[in-house]
Amino acid sequence: MVRNQSYWSSIEVDIQEYLKKAIPIRPPVSVFEPMHYLTFAAPKSRAPTLCIAACELTSGDGSQAMAAAAALHLMHAAIYTHENLPLTDRPRPKPEVPHKFGPNVELLTADGIIPFGLELLARSLNQTQDNPDKILRVIGEITRAVGSQGIVDGLHRELQMDRPDINVDRVIDYVCKKKEGELHACGAACGAILGGGDEEEIEKLRKYGLYVGMIHGMLNGNGKNKEGLMEEKIEKLRNLALKELENFDGKKVELISSFCSA
Amino acid sequence: MVRNQSYWSSIEVDIQEYLKKAIPIRPPVSVFEPMHYLTFAAPKSRAPTLCIAACELTSGDGSQAMAAAAALHLMHAAIYTHENLPLTDRPRPKPEVPHKFGPNVELLTADGIIPFGLELLARSLNQTQDNPDKILRVIGEITRAVGSQGIVDGLHRELQMDRPDINVDRVIDYVCKKKEGELHACGAACGAILGGGDEEEIEKLRKYGLYVGMIHGMLNGNGKNKEGLMEEKIEKLRNLALKELENFDGKKVELISSFCSA
Repeated sequence: MVRNQSYWSSIEVDIQEYLKKAIPIRPPVSVFEPMHYLTFAAPKSRAPTLCIAACELTSGDGSQAMAAAAALHLMHAAIYTHENLPLTDRPRPKPEVPHKFGPNVELLTADGIIPFGLELLARSLNQTQDNPDKILRVIGEITRAVGSQGIVDGLHRELQMDRPDINVDRVIDYVCKKKEGELHACGAACGAILGGGDEEEIEKLRKYGLYVGMIHGMLNGNGKNKEGLMEEKIEKLRNLALKELENFDGKKVELISSFCSA
Repeated sequence: MVRNQSYWSSIEVDIQEYLKKAIPIRPPVSVFEPMHYLTFAAPKSRAPTLCIAACELTSGDGSQAMAAAAALHLMHAAIYTHENLPLTDRPRPKPEVPHKFGPNVELLTADGIIPFGLELLARSLNQTQDNPDKILRVIGEITRAVGSQGIVDGLHRELQMDRPDINVDRVIDYVCKKKEGELHACGAACGAILGGGDEEEIEKLRKYGLYVGMIHGMLNGNGKNKEGLMEEKIEKLRNLALKELENFDGKKVELISSFCSA
């Protein structure tokens, strides 16, 4: 397990290094300083790491999925920033989140981070063996996962959580699926696409990512106040996740499977 | 001139039709109803129309640039929505803008519109004669124009407009260049890329779009309270714009050149 921890950590370090190079603090500083800050201020999601691990599991080199992993982190950071924006109808949703910049700048900066992530990916062509079809497919995957049929749908549903006519348990499941679930599903699928996995492998890793993301959503997000009730669900999701890895083999399976045990 | 007006109008109708089909009001209605509404509530930008006109000027068929034009409108609509979001540090910047939804929903919805526009483009592959390199290039162009080196930079600079140490005239020029200028430049360049223009034609149309966008920015946006001062600048920009069209010929030149005269 120590080895697996170091596997994730080393991937995370690589992604951070790549992002630091991609977003230097340069003129105009009023734009790039908050962009740099907000990119690294967001708590880490495991979706980018999973993207690299899935690429390696399908016999790719991690570097082939680096731009996609960075784009996934940037999407996550932008959404996290907007989730914590003080709006007039939710003045301070999470008072524990520090705001280094004013709401105006945080809004704008995250609006710049989203296209920047996709620009990184669109311009990664030469580094990744001239596979424009794969990169376009990955852009389609990421835009779908973070958009109105993915995270944005989850966030919309989250707004309804306080309504008296709502079945909170069902909403939590839906939100975990749409927010953390689809981002991780997308991460794993993109890694498999770029690593050269076949369609069956891509879909198996997509499902694996979905379950892993839902587990993390339940442990860290919406489910965290309902520990007792969640345990059973999480155990079920973990079994479903591991089942998706059954047809893969080699040392990398052990590495990627530990994503759903911590 | 009447004929030219009808040329623009017919392009605008085509883009609207394409968008209506792309964003039907469907489940989840809480997501797609505001998405549909906010897409069409934004005042029209001419950047998408210019994209189709540039495609036709470079001998392409307008339909080849339709997804790019739609993506440009979606970026513009998302940014317009966020610009008018009531934030705690700018409670109601433009009271004349009606808000059909709460700030939370408007924030989220525009966050869904940005990736949706790029998803449309990424998935437009089969309709446009299998040119993944061109589509990737266009995605790179659009993400750059709307991101931290384009519109977002302009919006950042706009926030500084009230500072006492600022040369307002110079800021207006910069903001018009970054906001309207770069979106129109990008629109014209993307149209030329998709229409099959060569690099020289792409760059000439990019510059043409830049000047046209700046003129519109000055007439409709930041410059509009300083009419006297602006007239001279606008005349200069119009001459620069028309100069970029000198090497093109045929009936389409007359059509596209009228973009900078109204």
